[in-house]
Amino acid sequence: MLEALALAQQGLLRTSPNPRVGCVLVDVAGCVIGRGSTQRAGGPHAEIMALRDALAQGHSTRGATAYVTLEPCAHQGRTGPCCDALAEAGIAKVVASITDPNPRVAGQGFARLRAAGVQVEVGPGAEAARELNLGFFSRMVRKTPWVRMKVAASLDGVTALPNGASQWITSPEARRDGHAWRARACAVLTGIGTVLADDPRLDVREVPTERQPALVLVDSALQVPLDASIFIADRGVYIYTASQNDAKKQALEERGVQVITLPDAHGKVDLAAMLTDLALRAEVNELHVEAGYKLNGSLLRAGLVDELLVYLAPKLLGAGAGMAQLGELTALAQAQELEFKAQDRVGPDLRVLARIRGRDRF
Amino acid sequence: MLEALALAQQGLLRTSPNPRVGCVLVDVAGCVIGRGSTQRAGGPHAEIMALRDALAQGHSTRGATAYVTLEPCAHQGRTGPCCDALAEAGIAKVVASITDPNPRVAGQGFARLRAAGVQVEVGPGAEAARELNLGFFSRMVRKTPWVRMKVAASLDGVTALPNGASQWITSPEARRDGHAWRARACAVLTGIGTVLADDPRLDVREVPTERQPALVLVDSALQVPLDASIFIADRGVYIYTASQNDAKKQALEERGVQVITLPDAHGKVDLAAMLTDLALRAEVNELHVEAGYKLNGSLLRAGLVDELLVYLAPKLLGAGAGMAQLGELTALAQAQELEFKAQDRVGPDLRVLARIRGRDRF
Repeated sequence: MLEALALAQQGLLRTSPNPRVGCVLVDVAGCVIGRGSTQRAGGPHAEIMALRDALAQGHSTRGATAYVTLEPCAHQGRTGPCCDALAEAGIAKVVASITDPNPRVAGQGFARLRAAGVQVEVGPGAEAARELNLGFFSRMVRKTPWVRMKVAASLDGVTALPNGASQWITSPEARRDGHAWRARACAVLTGIGTVLADDPRLDVREVPTERQPALVLVDSALQVPLDASIFIADRGVYIYTASQNDAKKQALEERGVQVITLPDAHGKVDLAAMLTDLALRAEVNELHVEAGYKLNGSLLRAGLVDELLVYLAPKLLGAGAGMAQLGELTALAQAQELEFKAQDRVGPDLRVLARIRGRDRF
Repeated sequence: MLEALALAQQGLLRTSPNPRVGCVLVDVAGCVIGRGSTQRAGGPHAEIMALRDALAQGHSTRGATAYVTLEPCAHQGRTGPCCDALAEAGIAKVVASITDPNPRVAGQGFARLRAAGVQVEVGPGAEAARELNLGFFSRMVRKTPWVRMKVAASLDGVTALPNGASQWITSPEARRDGHAWRARACAVLTGIGTVLADDPRLDVREVPTERQPALVLVDSALQVPLDASIFIADRGVYIYTASQNDAKKQALEERGVQVITLPDAHGKVDLAAMLTDLALRAEVNELHVEAGYKLNGSLLRAGLVDELLVYLAPKLLGAGAGMAQLGELTALAQAQELEFKAQDRVGPDLRVLARIRGRDRF
C-alpha cells in the first residue's frame, strides 16, 4: 500500500479535479505485476493503468490482489467504471485505503466488487490517502474547496514595508516552492488590491506542470484592467464581483473570462458563496490563495480558510503590513487558533504549514 | 572526542563563567579509563575529573591519551593548571578540540604539555566545542557577551495585543524550554518597561539548575520599584542607569544590587558600554535578553544582538506590538539579515534559532 500511495503522489500536479490515486497489482506469489497512477482528467484511472501495465508485461491478473488508495469508481464518468474492469480482469481481492466520498461512488464500488465475487478490504493507508486528496474530499463532503493561504513574510511577520515594498521578501527557492504549491491546486485566488499593486501573472512557471490552475479574482467593483498580467496564461479565469457594470463584464467575457456577480449585503463579494460556486462551477478541490493583507483578513474572519502556507525569511523588517487584517483583538483567547503540521527549510527560508485547528475534521 | 563533547554538554547549566569542557582518557589498548566534565566555577576542570575517575577505578593513566574539548589550562586560577596535572599523571598524548581563547592560556597549555614531553594534537571537534562555548569565546575574544534575544510571538509576529496583553502567547512547554535557555546563560537582561508592565521574576524555576543567572536591568531613569519581583531570587542583580538619583541608588545598593551609571549622549543607558562592562564586571558569557519591543529594537539597531530565540505560537493575532521596534524601513535591503540555525517543535509551538548573519565570525 505504501507503493500505491507513492504512485498516488505522482498524480499531485496532474489529476485535478479527480483525486490522486495509485494502484499496485500483486499476484498470488506476492510479486508486483502492475503499477498505475491516475492520469489527467478524462484519462485512465490508476486501476486501469495498473491492469494495462500487467498486460504489457505479459502477466496474468487472474487471482491477483489490487492495492488501491481509493475505492474503485462505480460510475461511467469520462472513463468506464474501474470496479467492473477489476472484476473482469479476474482480480480476487481489492485492498482499498478509503471509501470514495463522491456521492456517485460512496461504497457502490465496493458493493459491485463484492457482488462480482471480489473480496474487499478497506482501511490501510486511509489517513495518507485522505490527506493527499483533502481538496477532493472537501469538495465532495463540504461542497467547498480546501482553502490554503500562502503568505511570504519576514521572521517578524511583515509582508510588506509601510511604503508597500514586498518583492522579494523570500528567496528564489521559496518562490519556486510556492509555484509547486500553486501547481497542485485547481485554482489560484487573488484580490484586486494585489492585481492593482503588483500586476502579478500568478501562473505556474518555475516548476514543470501538465496543466495551469485556474485563476480566481475577487474584484468587488470590477476594477481589473483588461491588460492585467493575470490574463496572459492560457487557463480558466473566474472573476467574482459585486458590481453590475455590464459593459466591463461583457468586455471581460469576450476575452473568455467568466464573470460571476455575487454581492453580499455590504456591496462586497460574498466570499462564502464564492467558494461554494467554485466547487460547483469549476470543480475546485484545492484553492491556493495569494492575496494581500486585506483579503486574507476577510477570508480568515469569515472562517473560510483551512490552512496557511507561510514562508518566513531570515530577516527582521520591524514595521509594515502583517499577514492578515484581523481587526484589533482585546484578549489572547480571541486569537485565530492554528496547529503546526510541518516546518521545513526551503533554501534560506523557513516554510511552515499551519492548519486552522479542527478544519480537517469533516 | 564525541564522548568528550557529550561530557562537555553536561556542563551547560553549571560551569559558567568557565567554559563547558569534557575529557575522556583512553589507555594504550584503546579502552576508556576515565571520564570528566568541568564542575561549577571553583571546582575541578574536566581533565582533573577524568584523572580522578581513572584513579577511582584503579586504572593507571601512564601512556594514556586524553581527549579534551578545550586546551588544558596553564594558569593557576581557582584550581591548579590542568596541563601540569596531565603531564604528572603520565599522559602520553593530548588531543584537544580547540585552543583556549583565554589570554592567560591561549596556547600556553599546549606549550607546557609539549615541554613536558606530551604529544599534542589540536582540531577534532573544534566547531562543536566553540559553538558550545560561544559565550565564553565571545567574552574572551570580543570582550562582550554573546547576546541571545528571546521572543515569544504568534505566527504572524505579534508579541502583545494593542491593549498590552501578552501572557501567555506561547505554551507551557515553550515557557519551560525558555527557562532552560535562561539557565544556561550567565545573566538575564530586561528593561524597565517590562518590569513596570509585567513585574516578572525572570529567574529559573521550571527546570532544575545548580545556579541562578544574574539579573540585569536597563533602567535609564531608575524607576524600578524596590519591591519589584526581580529582587526575589537569590542572585546577582545589576542595574544600568543614566540617572544620578543617589538616594534611589543607595536604597538599591543596600539591597545588594549593583547600580552602574552609564549614560549615553541622549540620557539613555549606553548599551554597548553596558555589554563591555558586563563582560568585565560580571564575567557574562551568554546574555539572555527577555525584553519588550522597544529595548529589543534599541539593542538590534545598535548592532548588539547576536542571535534570536523565537517561539512562534500556532495562532494569528493580527495587530499589536511586533518583535522589535526597528523604525520604518523604506527598502527591503535595509532589513536586519538573519540566518536560521534550527527550527524545532516545542509542544504546540515552533522554536526558531536565528543568528544575525556573520555575528559568529569573530
